Amino acid sequence: MNVQNLKGFRDFLPKEAKKRQYVIDKIRGVFESYGFEPLETPSLEYAEILKGKYGEEEKLIYDFKTRGGDEVALRYDQTVPLARVVAQYQNEFPVPFKRYQIQNVWRGENTQKGRYREFLQCDADIVGTSSLMADAEIIALIFAIYKALGINVTIKINDRKNLENLDKKIVSAIDKLGKIGESAVLSEMTEKGMDADEAKKVLSKLSGKPKTEDIEKIFEFIKKMGIDSPKVKYEPTLARGLDYYTGIIFETVTDGKSGSLCSGGRYDNLIGMFANKNFPAVGFGLGFDRTVEAMDKLGLFPADLEVTKVLVTENDSKSLEIANELRSKGVNTEIWLDAETDLGKKIKYAEKKQIPYIIKFLPEPTLINMKTEEKTTDWNQILKILRK
Amino acid sequence: MNVQNLKGFRDFLPKEAKKRQYVIDKIRGVFESYGFEPLETPSLEYAEILKGKYGEEEKLIYDFKTRGGDEVALRYDQTVPLARVVAQYQNEFPVPFKRYQIQNVWRGENTQKGRYREFLQCDADIVGTSSLMADAEIIALIFAIYKALGINVTIKINDRKNLENLDKKIVSAIDKLGKIGESAVLSEMTEKGMDADEAKKVLSKLSGKPKTEDIEKIFEFIKKMGIDSPKVKYEPTLARGLDYYTGIIFETVTDGKSGSLCSGGRYDNLIGMFANKNFPAVGFGLGFDRTVEAMDKLGLFPADLEVTKVLVTENDSKSLEIANELRSKGVNTEIWLDAETDLGKKIKYAEKKQIPYIIKFLPEPTLINMKTEEKTTDWNQILKILRK
Repeated sequence: MNVQNLKGFRDFLPKEAKKRQYVIDKIRGVFESYGFEPLETPSLEYAEILKGKYGEEEKLIYDFKTRGGDEVALRYDQTVPLARVVAQYQNEFPVPFKRYQIQNVWRGENTQKGRYREFLQCDADIVGTSSLMADAEIIALIFAIYKALGINVTIKINDRKNLENLDKKIVSAIDKLGKIGESAVLSEMTEKGMDADEAKKVLSKLSGKPKTEDIEKIFEFIKKMGIDSPKVKYEPTLARGLDYYTGIIFETVTDGKSGSLCSGGRYDNLIGMFANKNFPAVGFGLGFDRTVEAMDKLGLFPADLEVTKVLVTENDSKSLEIANELRSKGVNTEIWLDAETDLGKKIKYAEKKQIPYIIKFLPEPTLINMKTEEKTTDWNQILKILRK
Repeated sequence: MNVQNLKGFRDFLPKEAKKRQYVIDKIRGVFESYGFEPLETPSLEYAEILKGKYGEEEKLIYDFKTRGGDEVALRYDQTVPLARVVAQYQNEFPVPFKRYQIQNVWRGENTQKGRYREFLQCDADIVGTSSLMADAEIIALIFAIYKALGINVTIKINDRKNLENLDKKIVSAIDKLGKIGESAVLSEMTEKGMDADEAKKVLSKLSGKPKTEDIEKIFEFIKKMGIDSPKVKYEPTLARGLDYYTGIIFETVTDGKSGSLCSGGRYDNLIGMFANKNFPAVGFGLGFDRTVEAMDKLGLFPADLEVTKVLVTENDSKSLEIANELRSKGVNTEIWLDAETDLGKKIKYAEKKQIPYIIKFLPEPTLINMKTEEKTTDWNQILKILRK
């Protein structure tokens, strides 16, 4: 038996899992501070719900037939399931419906490119209003999230209407401008059938386009929301890959990290594919892995992400009593469970688990700081230190 | 297109999703208060990892072949992935390794019996020690969880050694004693080839078995941990279905709800099937749905599980400023985003979302309690009410 995790899939051991939980809690807190409510959808959907929604990428969907004969597919993003949910329960929601969703998605990506096949997405969307105030709130929400995490970001925005007379293929070439640069984009445009001079003209004309009326309004709204406008950059060549956008589109970048941390836009027609009426919508998906990587790189995780605060090194009645008292006061406490009595082993355990304090009996209970080796026997002092 | 969730799978709309999040947060808090650390494993494993581990139930595994040709299977429980992880990274963990895991599992259950095919499990296990102190801590942990949730529980415990001379089929019949009663168990025992008199004798002998030495010790330890022993009931006929248990086994029940909320035991040989050395282990899995159902039935969810605390009914500069200030003070705040100006619609929205307060401009900002219609214009008072 090959005792390995599946290729392209990851185990998150405690150290990593704690970081992830930290980021999830922060993001959830900001979502809720703006009145977004949680939604969970199943990991599996009827395959037909997903098919025909993702263009070329459809081949990356994990689909299969169950023993019961159902054609099913693993969640590929959180937007299509949202559209299905809005259509299915359309009279049960308050409108506008502001929902967030933090679940895994699965894509059969090429692992040689360092891509994962299962990854977490954090989405927030506002469904049921075409007010540009909603678009502005989405932008404000993204800034609030990255502020809470400590990452400086810039949001590039554009209006899909700037691109509406261009062929899809040409748009997908232009979309690569930030990644591959102007000359490579120009040659891709010509490969896709456009005359070289024409390509140059199109790109230059696009680059010079002034802000649309909608973009002007959004800038006005986010200013009112207290966002520095230099942090939001109008970029008329920003294109975004997905077909379904109809209005504002945006990407979030941070210094020293290529690619987008988080992106989205307005998509007023997608939900109508599922429901019998139109539901204008705007929202974004946050790339969780990229965000965690950026935080790691910038050293933004608190040093004390430890779960256990103190290890009581014995397990007699007195130790158990102390552990109970500490836990009841909100201190994450371990007692030594193993039959092993060697203190060195216990200390190694505490070190490996990054437990910052131990309580030893000398013979009265003594708190020892694992780093400074400072000792305390005053119980009130011990409580004060551990509850910090 | 059939715009429906897949049969046997569930959408959790905000009201339900908030309850679930409330329970998860509580459980996570208790796990961490005992020093258990989070682990995440992939949803998909190589199918061979799962095969041959679940006996008859193996046919319920969701397995399929990916386009890349891998034979894969969706997580069926969290114990086998734990065993795989311990084997794969065995030198990276502190020992004992105390991990918790809160993830979905998938089983192709018969939906006509009201069973779900995707459901959340909350597991905690202690790996790497055969100390009975670990078994006792697992029992104490379960009590601490249900205490935090407000559910009164009784834990029935037994020692698998009481059953070790009995045939597997007979054990699985005896396992149903709590569900189907003595006479039905006796007839199942005879169906499985045991003489009727012999069956009676076996059952009566088992019922009268005194506590084993290990059970005695566990009772002694949990008493030291501050647990009332009437809450833990020795039940020599308790059997548990799974083959892999080797020592203590237990189930958690609550008044007025049939079946077990949470169950587990000691399994000293399972991880050895993956690793080259033996890892004794003890742990449990908590049935999340049953726990949420029990809480619903007992009315244990706080009335104010609302996400949004206040809706600011306008979206002009002053409103946005107020919303920013409230959010910065930790108050979950919405502003009215839609172009709709009818106040009645805004109030309906607040009602539908169970938002307890609104701020209206009359013309100065006025907090209105949605239930009592009490009004406040004093800003300090407003902050005090909203931050409660």
